[in-house]
Amino acid sequence: MTARSLPKKIEINADMGEAFGRWKLGPDEEIMKHIDVANVACGFHASDPVTLHKTVRLAKKHNVAVGAHPGFPDLAGFGRRRMELTEEEVADIITYQIGAVKAFCDLEGVPLNHVKPHGALYFYLKNSRPHCVAAFRAIKAWGVPVYGLGGTVHEEVAKEVGIPFVPELFVDIEYSPEGALIPPAQSKEISPEESAERARKVALTGTNYAQGGGEVHMPEFGHGDNGGRCRPFSICLHSDLPGAEQSVAATRRAVDELNAKLFGDV
Amino acid sequence: MTARSLPKKIEINADMGEAFGRWKLGPDEEIMKHIDVANVACGFHASDPVTLHKTVRLAKKHNVAVGAHPGFPDLAGFGRRRMELTEEEVADIITYQIGAVKAFCDLEGVPLNHVKPHGALYFYLKNSRPHCVAAFRAIKAWGVPVYGLGGTVHEEVAKEVGIPFVPELFVDIEYSPEGALIPPAQSKEISPEESAERARKVALTGTNYAQGGGEVHMPEFGHGDNGGRCRPFSICLHSDLPGAEQSVAATRRAVDELNAKLFGDV
Amino acid sequence: MTARSLPKKIEINADMGEAFGRWKLGPDEEIMKHIDVANVACGFHASDPVTLHKTVRLAKKHNVAVGAHPGFPDLAGFGRRRMELTEEEVADIITYQIGAVKAFCDLEGVPLNHVKPHGALYFYLKNSRPHCVAAFRAIKAWGVPVYGLGGTVHEEVAKEVGIPFVPELFVDIEYSPEGALIPPAQSKEISPEESAERARKVALTGTNYAQGGGEVHMPEFGHGDNGGRCRPFSICLHSDLPGAEQSVAATRRAVDELNAKLFGDV
Amino acid sequence: MTARSLPKKIEINADMGEAFGRWKLGPDEEIMKHIDVANVACGFHASDPVTLHKTVRLAKKHNVAVGAHPGFPDLAGFGRRRMELTEEEVADIITYQIGAVKAFCDLEGVPLNHVKPHGALYFYLKNSRPHCVAAFRAIKAWGVPVYGLGGTVHEEVAKEVGIPFVPELFVDIEYSPEGALIPPAQSKEISPEESAERARKVALTGTNYAQGGGEVHMPEFGHGDNGGRCRPFSICLHSDLPGAEQSVAATRRAVDELNAKLFGDV
Repeated sequence: MTARSLPKKIEINADMGEAFGRWKLGPDEEIMKHIDVANVACGFHASDPVTLHKTVRLAKKHNVAVGAHPGFPDLAGFGRRRMELTEEEVADIITYQIGAVKAFCDLEGVPLNHVKPHGALYFYLKNSRPHCVAAFRAIKAWGVPVYGLGGTVHEEVAKEVGIPFVPELFVDIEYSPEGALIPPAQSKEISPEESAERARKVALTGTNYAQGGGEVHMPEFGHGDNGGRCRPFSICLHSDLPGAEQSVAATRRAVDELNAKLFGDV
Repeated sequence: MTARSLPKKIEINADMGEAFGRWKLGPDEEIMKHIDVANVACGFHASDPVTLHKTVRLAKKHNVAVGAHPGFPDLAGFGRRRMELTEEEVADIITYQIGAVKAFCDLEGVPLNHVKPHGALYFYLKNSRPHCVAAFRAIKAWGVPVYGLGGTVHEEVAKEVGIPFVPELFVDIEYSPEGALIPPAQSKEISPEESAERARKVALTGTNYAQGGGEVHMPEFGHGDNGGRCRPFSICLHSDLPGAEQSVAATRRAVDELNAKLFGDV
Repeated sequence: MTARSLPKKIEINADMGEAFGRWKLGPDEEIMKHIDVANVACGFHASDPVTLHKTVRLAKKHNVAVGAHPGFPDLAGFGRRRMELTEEEVADIITYQIGAVKAFCDLEGVPLNHVKPHGALYFYLKNSRPHCVAAFRAIKAWGVPVYGLGGTVHEEVAKEVGIPFVPELFVDIEYSPEGALIPPAQSKEISPEESAERARKVALTGTNYAQGGGEVHMPEFGHGDNGGRCRPFSICLHSDLPGAEQSVAATRRAVDELNAKLFGDV
Repeated sequence: MTARSLPKKIEINADMGEAFGRWKLGPDEEIMKHIDVANVACGFHASDPVTLHKTVRLAKKHNVAVGAHPGFPDLAGFGRRRMELTEEEVADIITYQIGAVKAFCDLEGVPLNHVKPHGALYFYLKNSRPHCVAAFRAIKAWGVPVYGLGGTVHEEVAKEVGIPFVPELFVDIEYSPEGALIPPAQSKEISPEESAERARKVALTGTNYAQGGGEVHMPEFGHGDNGGRCRPFSICLHSDLPGAEQSVAATRRAVDELNAKLFGDV
């Protein structure tokens, strides 16, 4: 198999393999049944070599594409605490972590699908263009797309550096009226059916529900300027929120219907 | 470049890149000038992503071949404390660490040369055949030789599993009369000229000086049954012993002379 | 408050605070309601400063005595993998970890009750008298009892070093016919009612059920040579086994009845 | 011994015990001969239990007071990378680390002298008053002074929270014309004699040399409003800069002369 290029339909991704040794996290076995793409933790914010290997095997069993999900070197903080690293440090921790995931991909005979930075690193790159450039240059060597927030520094730098970019939509947490992601702790709980409905709404109209009522336009999903349909994108669902399995299953059904309708000819 | 096969002459290897963040260890810059092969620490017993990248770059600059030097996950113990891991854990920590080194090799355009387990892991594999089998099977996937102690479980399992094996000779620490390596702390200090002399003695006669006087026969270097000359082997020098730079330089000169004499036609 | 001396009745202890950052483990809130003594993880095999603080506060709320539960420095292995440390290393990791727990005890105004080594360290001390001596000398400075396996090196060294010793009985895993603890993975599952029954059987008869049928005599609990009743001991229940809460509750009821009967005059 | 109150003369402090396992850092043995107060690393940004114990013993041998030097949980970054922790996290990592140092102080029979936050944590507290309040409240429980930058949030919060405060002067790195400390990497090298001269200048005149020429007034050392002499303060010297030993020795001589002159009656 060769590394995947950009998705041709709407797909679902989720963070997988975020156990650490004795400690488990999230119903990976159940969620793998419903997703297209796994963002596999690499051992810096979560996971360990045995967990990483198991997760790649589990993804392979369910025919789910494997991406690397590198994070800050902070197990105690689950990679969710901003750390002020230099550009060189950011580039090198990403290379290191991708290498670790790729090793298990090679062993199991599956390609590396993409790279998606985790947690505070994801937002660190969004908020510091020089760090994003350093990170994406390191990723470029792997020949796979990077996943990120469309219309932000993520997408701008991907274009500048010359790597394929896949915009993500989050459907189990809220967005502000200005289109900014609300951290899980400040977001209202979103039911499985509401998650599915958000997927449909964005795919069909290019707008989403905003926190506090009202709507937010999401031009990054390309609705309107893609021959009458949105451009293919990736929906991210959190595997560690309550009801994760139900949310993923409901969104799966919605995505399958949307794909038949929008990309049935692909 | 493709991965290297077995050495055709006597060569010198040394453990490199064993700094960790703020902490340095050993005169890597100086030693790289004299060696053929670097065993590069992978971040579990020493090193970090930035150090790993620098070390691969330094090896490349000096045209030194890069091998992975995986160890136990024990920075505080420098990988020198035996840890009772399962076979699965041993295999997976090795795959993980090789992947990390390979990532920087790929980035810098140098091949992965070999794998040499570090410290207590090296001896753990020698003393537990099932763990050695698990480890060497994991290494086999990389298509490179493993370095180890000739005539021990290391060499037997390499043959059984089907991976090329390079026997190592240590010239800056002593051997017991039975041929067992003496840990650095219990070994007498060996001067640079004595290190060079040990290299010569083993290459030319197949025997070495034993601790406490007397000699030890070292059939693993194949003297006598290789058409009148020893089989090519690798000399390991410790980069963190006092006088390391002088020992490496003196041994380099001896090895160059031995190679001209023994393998001048290669 | 001053540090506690030896228990005067049968008591129940459990390992508490074995979360790590984002990862939870065991129903601490529920189990704290039923136990007398908490063995609080110290950050080396599990826990982190925030978890440690929360656990000490939770114990205080339920009037549960707080002990330190030091382990090997191995989060990925949960302190369950034997590590060959020197005697000095063992003593110093124990001092360090007790100090960390004591800091939170002081902050919350509760005394340090005891020390109980965790997992592989517990058995390392049982199997190596020199390490046990080093460890118990370090513990002696704190003026609290150590918990361990009665009739083993644990108890012998406690006597030799001069620290009070509390023997532990495990009622949710099996013992071999020779009286050796069976690791959880090899033990049959024991129901809550069976756990309670084992507590009763040992307290009243000095014998326990052995793996595979038959009985094992347990003289370490002093039945017979203590004026007609067993000596006070501590029952350890695993907080991370399935059904832990039910086992603890059932054993609590049995212990209360036993204490009324055996130590009602205390 | 009881914990020390504020210094009565000018004193010298240095960060000690910043080795980690196999890796050494700085000539602790030499520097201990010249200083009054050691800031002992606690295992989060540097050190390990054996190193911590050795460092407390070494300080005791040289009659040097022992303080805790807690840092961010970031060995790879030596605690010099800002980490965005919550106030609760900051308070609890400080309590944990002080507890570890205090354990070895108790074992060796020396009092805990003070607390000085390390590296990026030192500046994090200076730049975020809520974190500083949380940290200093945690420190308050230990009944010892905190060391920090005079005239900044450090000193303001110490007063607010009600803990004794010792202002520090750095003499081996530069200050900006506005009185801000210059990070070591951007500071010019300062010779041992210049370090001593800076100590004299500040003690006698209340002004210091500023980066780029000119002078900076340093009212935090109280010159002028203390009965004609500066208030006692602590001079911090970096044990890991080149020439550290010479700088400490030269500054020691200057401080001894200044103390005889200014505080000879104390």
